[in-house]
Amino acid sequence: MNRLEHLSINIPETGKKRVVIIGGGFAGIKLVEGLLDQDYQVVLLDKHNYHTFQPLLYQVATAGLEPDSIAGPLRKLLKGKKDFFFRMLRVDEINPVKQCISTPIGDIRFDYLIVASGSRTNYFGNEEIARLAFPLKKLTDALDLRSQFLQSMEQSVMTRDPEKRQNLLNFVIVGGGPTGVEVAGALAEARKHVLVKDYPELDIQHLQIYLIEGADRLLNGMREKSGEKALGYLKELGVNVKLGRIVKSYDGAVVHLDDGTEIESQTLVWAAGVQGNIIPGLNSSVDRSRYVVDAYNRIQGYENIFAIGDVAAMKSKQWPLGHPMLAPIAMQQAENLGKNFRRKENGKSLLPFKFVDKGTMATVGRNKAVVDLPKGSFGGLFAWLVWMLVHLVSIIGFRNKLVVMSNWFWSYLTYDQGIRLIVRLFKREATFKENKKAA
Amino acid sequence: MNRLEHLSINIPETGKKRVVIIGGGFAGIKLVEGLLDQDYQVVLLDKHNYHTFQPLLYQVATAGLEPDSIAGPLRKLLKGKKDFFFRMLRVDEINPVKQCISTPIGDIRFDYLIVASGSRTNYFGNEEIARLAFPLKKLTDALDLRSQFLQSMEQSVMTRDPEKRQNLLNFVIVGGGPTGVEVAGALAEARKHVLVKDYPELDIQHLQIYLIEGADRLLNGMREKSGEKALGYLKELGVNVKLGRIVKSYDGAVVHLDDGTEIESQTLVWAAGVQGNIIPGLNSSVDRSRYVVDAYNRIQGYENIFAIGDVAAMKSKQWPLGHPMLAPIAMQQAENLGKNFRRKENGKSLLPFKFVDKGTMATVGRNKAVVDLPKGSFGGLFAWLVWMLVHLVSIIGFRNKLVVMSNWFWSYLTYDQGIRLIVRLFKREATFKENKKAA
Repeated sequence: MNRLEHLSINIPETGKKRVVIIGGGFAGIKLVEGLLDQDYQVVLLDKHNYHTFQPLLYQVATAGLEPDSIAGPLRKLLKGKKDFFFRMLRVDEINPVKQCISTPIGDIRFDYLIVASGSRTNYFGNEEIARLAFPLKKLTDALDLRSQFLQSMEQSVMTRDPEKRQNLLNFVIVGGGPTGVEVAGALAEARKHVLVKDYPELDIQHLQIYLIEGADRLLNGMREKSGEKALGYLKELGVNVKLGRIVKSYDGAVVHLDDGTEIESQTLVWAAGVQGNIIPGLNSSVDRSRYVVDAYNRIQGYENIFAIGDVAAMKSKQWPLGHPMLAPIAMQQAENLGKNFRRKENGKSLLPFKFVDKGTMATVGRNKAVVDLPKGSFGGLFAWLVWMLVHLVSIIGFRNKLVVMSNWFWSYLTYDQGIRLIVRLFKREATFKENKKAA
Repeated sequence: MNRLEHLSINIPETGKKRVVIIGGGFAGIKLVEGLLDQDYQVVLLDKHNYHTFQPLLYQVATAGLEPDSIAGPLRKLLKGKKDFFFRMLRVDEINPVKQCISTPIGDIRFDYLIVASGSRTNYFGNEEIARLAFPLKKLTDALDLRSQFLQSMEQSVMTRDPEKRQNLLNFVIVGGGPTGVEVAGALAEARKHVLVKDYPELDIQHLQIYLIEGADRLLNGMREKSGEKALGYLKELGVNVKLGRIVKSYDGAVVHLDDGTEIESQTLVWAAGVQGNIIPGLNSSVDRSRYVVDAYNRIQGYENIFAIGDVAAMKSKQWPLGHPMLAPIAMQQAENLGKNFRRKENGKSLLPFKFVDKGTMATVGRNKAVVDLPKGSFGGLFAWLVWMLVHLVSIIGFRNKLVVMSNWFWSYLTYDQGIRLIVRLFKREATFKENKKAA
């Protein structure tokens, strides 16, 4: 971002109470929509000028979709709203005493503040991995990862040394949650249908996909049966799944697992964890990088400061650490909070948040997905169709629905994925393991 | 690009004669196609892994199309060809004595070499402009320019100072050829239909578009009537066209013209000239950064080294400096050269190149374009339809045709342009003119 000191906030005081929302994710935009027919001035801040439909990021990373089809410009999504202001700004600090937030271009006063800042990749303190691995949480992460995959492929045909080639063709994905499973599956599908044709000079069986998971099963947030099914699908697609294994270290060339296994690889995809985006300034309890909130999403110790979505931990018997970090929960919390704003104005009592679980799902590949419903689970072709339908309905904007649907239809018919441009080049030098034979 | 010293060329010698082609632009891929049913080994090199349909770059820059829809992965375009090798590599030098070219990972031997390296932006030696202006020649240029446009818009609502706001809202385009005219027109259309809705807090009339051209007319390569029509269209759209004016200097804040005019602007688009991408190593005559070639596209002084497309200057009575740098000429030269390779094998005489002019065209906005045919010219809605049809037919790949067509159809119906994501952020600090009043 440009340095912005010469600019200023420039939001008029209209006499209405001002609600400031930090973050234009699922929670943030749902809340904007809920508040806009109420008598508030609404200010939305985000570092980006677009909303990202994160569940499909992995398809951007694996060359199935273009970034624009899973992201919506925030100004377009929220077009025509009255007394609404969007600012593309980072928030540096919250000042609860002065009732304002600090940004690089000045302070913004608030009457109500809602922190919907979401989550970011968690490297669990491993700085080497943070520097060398590829995360998959932002749109730019997805573009970086796509370029890395394709550059590794290009480089793999430019060596006669089988060890170096293997290093370039090993793709290691850490984390057996939906993201890890989906990346591994999509990459295996690309190997089968696309890369085999793009690189005829390569023995495509040398392209190896590893999925490393610390627990003894995949998709830990879903039913055991679904995890088993996903494992079966991945094995069918030729993915090397290693359960109960933890990555100890990575130097850009070799991945070391806790059982002593070494995997040489230029590409380590880190999908092993996320943490809340805490903003400095509040004296409230933060648990595992999430704000502890009450049943009305109020941050402990404050009357007019709220947290919703991934960054909020609403503890309960069922979820002693707070709800899982999922889009439906973020949206439902935003909806409930919007209703409570109205109830408060009308002198009604506030409604505590109650999560309505409509199910969770993950896709592995062509005709292969798993769906958990509150009262059962299923897999296979039907699950895959349900997965597609739910994602199409959920993605924001009619244009995006159309574009994503056409892309899927096209890929299904042609077994092709169109999006294989390397638009971001990496300065990082390929690093190979010291040649032992030379020693 | 990664440093590649540890890699090697790794192209097998199959006993066939090897044709090396530098550049996967219009000329390069056309020639690959022409050679592949002949008895050669064909090696194609390009810095990128994709072919760019440059005529539509301006629509990527002005948020009308996604980068993937105007670019085609080279491996996909050239899929299934026998004894064909693509390498994503830069070429550093040609060594005509050793009959090889040098790349960062080693030399590649050739029997025939075809330089189809195209052209790049020409700043005419002005280093300040080269550093601070936005070119529009590559896909990444288009993404950079789009981000710059949108970031300037975002910043313009973040100031109360009318001078600073105007600085952010002045967009200056230099060069009245097709690219400059098309960018200016597309931006004016976006102002009218998209930006006015996206930025309700802004008086959109403050957004000013300037088009600066050194000659006394627009579209110098086309008929005078077409230039006049384009000028009329641009004025109708509210673009400030300044003819017969040259940019003297630009410091990132103020554009100085040769008549003393100053325009404050953060965004200077440089579409004022291109030059051939000469590769070091040949002792042949280069004229205005293009290889002088004979009627068979042979570079002067060499029997087996050719240049085609923008980088070739084939001088004739009609074109004393060589043909204009246009895609149809590049493709026709490639086609002719491909035929000559076959004729030579069959012992037939070589055919000299003859350009068949099918016309030129440029678009300004919705329902507004100009078309020159060999025997006349026309403008308006019909020209606009012809422009669209010709570009749809020319763009490579059935998928890209479909995607571009759907985008255009969508934009036409909704008056909307979907692609407004800022995916590249600039570190350059916004620079404003010293406040004279303070002095």
